Amino acid sequence: MSNDLAQLVMERCNALGAISEEEGRLTRRSLTPAMRAAHNLVSGWMRAAGMTVHEDNVGNMVGSYPADRLAARTLIIGSHLDTVRDAGKYDGVLGVLVGLAAVERLHQTDRRLPFGIEVVAFTDEEGLRFPACLGSRAMVGSFDLVALNLPDADEVTLAEAIRAFGGDPDLVAQDVRRSQDLLGYLEVHIEQGPTLERAGLPVGVVSAITGFSRTNLAFIGVAGHAGTVPMTMRHDALCAAAEFVLAVEAHARSVPGLVSTVGELSISPGARNVIPGAATLSLDLRHQDEHERLAGQADLHWRAEEIASTRGLSLRWDVAHGQAAVPMAPDLRERLAAAIVAAGHPPTELPSGAGHDAAVMAGLTDAAMLFVRCKGGVSHNPAESVTVEDVAVAIDVVGRFLDGMA
Amino acid sequence: MSNDLAQLVMERCNALGAISEEEGRLTRRSLTPAMRAAHNLVSGWMRAAGMTVHEDNVGNMVGSYPADRLAARTLIIGSHLDTVRDAGKYDGVLGVLVGLAAVERLHQTDRRLPFGIEVVAFTDEEGLRFPACLGSRAMVGSFDLVALNLPDADEVTLAEAIRAFGGDPDLVAQDVRRSQDLLGYLEVHIEQGPTLERAGLPVGVVSAITGFSRTNLAFIGVAGHAGTVPMTMRHDALCAAAEFVLAVEAHARSVPGLVSTVGELSISPGARNVIPGAATLSLDLRHQDEHERLAGQADLHWRAEEIASTRGLSLRWDVAHGQAAVPMAPDLRERLAAAIVAAGHPPTELPSGAGHDAAVMAGLTDAAMLFVRCKGGVSHNPAESVTVEDVAVAIDVVGRFLDGMA
Repeated sequence: MSNDLAQLVMERCNALGAISEEEGRLTRRSLTPAMRAAHNLVSGWMRAAGMTVHEDNVGNMVGSYPADRLAARTLIIGSHLDTVRDAGKYDGVLGVLVGLAAVERLHQTDRRLPFGIEVVAFTDEEGLRFPACLGSRAMVGSFDLVALNLPDADEVTLAEAIRAFGGDPDLVAQDVRRSQDLLGYLEVHIEQGPTLERAGLPVGVVSAITGFSRTNLAFIGVAGHAGTVPMTMRHDALCAAAEFVLAVEAHARSVPGLVSTVGELSISPGARNVIPGAATLSLDLRHQDEHERLAGQADLHWRAEEIASTRGLSLRWDVAHGQAAVPMAPDLRERLAAAIVAAGHPPTELPSGAGHDAAVMAGLTDAAMLFVRCKGGVSHNPAESVTVEDVAVAIDVVGRFLDGMA
Repeated sequence: MSNDLAQLVMERCNALGAISEEEGRLTRRSLTPAMRAAHNLVSGWMRAAGMTVHEDNVGNMVGSYPADRLAARTLIIGSHLDTVRDAGKYDGVLGVLVGLAAVERLHQTDRRLPFGIEVVAFTDEEGLRFPACLGSRAMVGSFDLVALNLPDADEVTLAEAIRAFGGDPDLVAQDVRRSQDLLGYLEVHIEQGPTLERAGLPVGVVSAITGFSRTNLAFIGVAGHAGTVPMTMRHDALCAAAEFVLAVEAHARSVPGLVSTVGELSISPGARNVIPGAATLSLDLRHQDEHERLAGQADLHWRAEEIASTRGLSLRWDVAHGQAAVPMAPDLRERLAAAIVAAGHPPTELPSGAGHDAAVMAGLTDAAMLFVRCKGGVSHNPAESVTVEDVAVAIDVVGRFLDGMA
């Protein structure tokens, strides 16, 4: 039965993948006519699965499947229907549709559980139009109302976009949920990395959403003529930057679970016959353990100072932005692992290097995530790919998880 | 007497430094009204030094000081009066004025030598307006007449610019000099590097104008999410590029006289949260010895292949441009060294990492260059600086060199 539902989920992913703001590629921003079309489609499927559907004022769509009793608490299964530009079909969408399929399976046998289930499609998780995780922040109450005045790329403010979508921006604060009404939060998502594929596993339990440190740094040396300044008299900023890039890589390889990336590098003056006088870099460092992340950041700062000093350069080091790691709830992780075992697969835990609504929802209630293997670890790309077999496992695991919570 | 002449040379450098096409900074392209003003000034000084002055069709200005006999050969002392954008006062100009000062010294005592002396200001050595070393190429006969149709940045062709300056582009080929009429070529120039300054020497003899190899290369890896792809599964193009940059540096440090520079580096996609998928670099490699240059180039190509292969990346390696080293004439180098010793200074030889008209003139006649110490090795910059004392040494050395040739 999971297999039939999985096939249905794949077809629904295809149907939603055709609803785009752009010809020839998938781009679906929140609070747009394309999103309205997506909501119409998904809400129809939700109603057919025995759910009532409403939208809150920030545009989150909530399908509710009742409990078998009154005054029950609610488990939220959420993800998002908005996409990045030129997106794949599964990031976000799969989580909403697997949640819906799990409810569908209950509805097919007319089963209710001792808790209500809400399947939520959150507004603007990707942040392509407005700040990321807008919808979950509004639900948690960590949404800054000042953001209502933020314009999108076409100078339409969030408040205007909410109004055009049918919400009332003045009532956003009324949609905040109460912790005591909730049993927990579950999000199913493609892994966006190659770990499950390499391990040969269909699904895995997320241990934590990693924290990150973002730093802008620059090595300032001395520009000079590429032909006339001897090697021993150079203060080449690119050589210092290169040493740092390799130090970052070696350091991350030596600390289990640490991923560090220099994703931006520009040099000045940037001419083939001029020794680089300055090199500007970004550093992105992530670990699920706060201690490891902060220690790693400090190690690399020291290393950059050392490189600059040895080479007679100066260093600029500006910590741009950081975010603490968000561990997933131990109880829910254990239950997810048990469901995976019951479904006949080895359980595994892995951190999520990317952010998700689950990191926001963890501020309100116990949160957990189930990752589904994706081909080549590719995401944010039309090449995103998952198999119907893995989707069937995910539906099965969520079903067993729900049974376990009952 | 060298000291008085050196003072005069410094004042003349200042006077020429004030003749610019741009307000507030020195930019003097060839064949412009500013260059006409510069020629007017210098030709006046030449005539006062007993020289006759003419311009050839490509705009080279030639001051001729006669020999003490008929049918004598000619020694050319040349450099250029055109500048880069936002230039210093000495690059090029100093060579013309030191040559003029040497003639002036002969003229003051009404001395003639058994050979004629021509002081030449070549057209467009810097190549800011038209192809570099245009004037010396025209004199040598290696000037491609097709270049007459090349436009400058304002769509004025070289032929039009020559005409506006008073030359006849159809007659350029008639100005080619005959080798058998020439005794040799000498060029005085600021070093544009820090070697003489570090050695505490006012002047040095150029051993060769180094050849160069220019390569464009790219490492092609796999872009990915900075948070979700574990370190061991990455094919980070920037890490490969960094390894190559350090390999280039280490290699050049291990080969005496080799200078290698990665002056351009760009990565794609170039976002702080994305693992670099491609890195494009330039490589500039110079050595005065052709064998060393070509061996170095081959070593680094092999090293780049090795880095790409070890990291599971692909490599693109495009040799963009190369130029053979031009050794200066051994006989003239010895004579210059002897003149330096006679002037009371230790002789030293050093390669020229930058190109000069001397490299072109070496195709026609024996060529030599005398480098003058410059502050901090800085050139192509308003901060270019030489001392009056070093200029006095240069004038003295050129005078003794001329005496030695007699």
